[in-house]
Amino acid sequence: MVTIGIDLGGTNIAAGLVNEEKKLVAKKSVPTLGKRPAEEIIRDMAQLALSLIRENELSEREVSAIGIGCPGTVDPHTGEIIFTPNLPFRRTNVREIFREYTSIPVYCGNDADAAALGEAYAGAAAGCSSAVMITLGTGVGGGVIIDKHIVSGFNGAGGELGHMVIVKDGEPCNCGRRGCWEAYSSATGLIRMTKAAMEKHPESALWKFAPTLGEVNGRTAFDGLRAGDPAAKEVVDEYVSYLATGLTNIINIFQPEVILLGGGVAKEGQFLIDLLLPQIDRERYGKDVAKTQIKPAMLGNDAGIIGAAMLGY
Amino acid sequence: MVTIGIDLGGTNIAAGLVNEEKKLVAKKSVPTLGKRPAEEIIRDMAQLALSLIRENELSEREVSAIGIGCPGTVDPHTGEIIFTPNLPFRRTNVREIFREYTSIPVYCGNDADAAALGEAYAGAAAGCSSAVMITLGTGVGGGVIIDKHIVSGFNGAGGELGHMVIVKDGEPCNCGRRGCWEAYSSATGLIRMTKAAMEKHPESALWKFAPTLGEVNGRTAFDGLRAGDPAAKEVVDEYVSYLATGLTNIINIFQPEVILLGGGVAKEGQFLIDLLLPQIDRERYGKDVAKTQIKPAMLGNDAGIIGAAMLGY
Repeated sequence: MVTIGIDLGGTNIAAGLVNEEKKLVAKKSVPTLGKRPAEEIIRDMAQLALSLIRENELSEREVSAIGIGCPGTVDPHTGEIIFTPNLPFRRTNVREIFREYTSIPVYCGNDADAAALGEAYAGAAAGCSSAVMITLGTGVGGGVIIDKHIVSGFNGAGGELGHMVIVKDGEPCNCGRRGCWEAYSSATGLIRMTKAAMEKHPESALWKFAPTLGEVNGRTAFDGLRAGDPAAKEVVDEYVSYLATGLTNIINIFQPEVILLGGGVAKEGQFLIDLLLPQIDRERYGKDVAKTQIKPAMLGNDAGIIGAAMLGY
Repeated sequence: MVTIGIDLGGTNIAAGLVNEEKKLVAKKSVPTLGKRPAEEIIRDMAQLALSLIRENELSEREVSAIGIGCPGTVDPHTGEIIFTPNLPFRRTNVREIFREYTSIPVYCGNDADAAALGEAYAGAAAGCSSAVMITLGTGVGGGVIIDKHIVSGFNGAGGELGHMVIVKDGEPCNCGRRGCWEAYSSATGLIRMTKAAMEKHPESALWKFAPTLGEVNGRTAFDGLRAGDPAAKEVVDEYVSYLATGLTNIINIFQPEVILLGGGVAKEGQFLIDLLLPQIDRERYGKDVAKTQIKPAMLGNDAGIIGAAMLGY
């Protein structure tokens, strides 16, 4: 039996066919066109799934489940998308609307959770009893997997690790709190720190990598550090210290077998991880026990599709 | 079938017989005498269990499991106590040593986790799909229960919620980090804040409740607040704000059905909870979903015994 995973994004709907070995064997996508009514977006998701089935010469009976990962808050029990930022879903029961198009069982989950599940089944956390995936992008996303199950709370809204305050009364966060981990460890946070350093240091080599403040991105500080610029080193040191603080919190709370880093900033890979480890090793609780590994995530965008396909497991 | 729970404390070893309805039907205790070799303490635990069986006219075959909750880090898979503060256990395999005294299967876990499990089976979280128990004592202890299972990580050291940094580079914590939740929300943290306010305000009514700084305890500030003292109100407001910050983090991470407050400071009960709720309601993630309840724990010291008795379930 195969399953279908759908990753509902703000820009594209990506769907894939996942076989029994948890391999993504076919994939296609259509634009989300997120300003349309929810019903039309759901229709397109269903048609995308059905066309994948047809094009791969399968019958609906050979597909055991369709899983959908979407941004925002999802009730995995009812199949309801309770709220999505940037998309028109408001207490929309996707599972029910899908029934108009197919009788294949439909499962829904949060997209960051689905990506973590995908890595746990088929990626960098395969074979681990527990894993936490942290996505360092525009925000800081989190997905917690224990024994191949998503930890999403009794209401489906859990795993919002980025909205853990690490600096009481610190930088404002989009969620309304102050001092959330996301406000420091997202690419957005890193860009803010980089710009502040550039304004303070007109002599810095950072200006070579980003001739105007508008050109600063999540790589600028790391590029400057590799070029030997002292201001860039200060920025990266500051960023790494906040990131390590949050990661150590996650270790003390979950002691997962592995933490995976994904998203834009995690493209720095082992270079970033090597900068993080000294503080984490110094601060983590339980010095006498086996250590949580920290590794880059492996599957990129496919993690969300594969994990969505596993939501019904 | 009944089970036996043992709560190994720094001062006393308490053991109890728990019936199929998860009720504590008999209880007895002996002093721990924690300076002795681990083997002697384990022998006394075994003999305490065996005497409970005898005195209740049971045979060993009628007892399906013995569970032991102890402070520190425990490997639930092997039955090994890896490290306990104030007790001489260092990679001590309690399960193995117990076999010299009885063939009843032995299960080990952390004491804060066991207390949370006890409340989940038979106390204030009974019937809940998930619960987090926070103990506000000398430290801030944590126990996380999902579907009646303890979340303790791949190495048994998880659930150390008190060692989540909420104030980066803040007050020093016993664990070696700075700014841990425990440094602010423990009774110890509250006492520190109370003393600082008294030194700053010689006119404060707090001096009536604690004529010397040595007499300050976790109730002093709350007593002062109820007497209308402005300095006491400032202390409680400050304490409540740190506690609410940590609790909101726990909600955003776990979205548990219920958070239980136990330990000395939680004796303030609903009065404390009513002070916490406005900030938590303002800051928690997922405004459109069902809300985590915050309640006082119910079972007191019995929670640890009942939960220990359930460790083998």
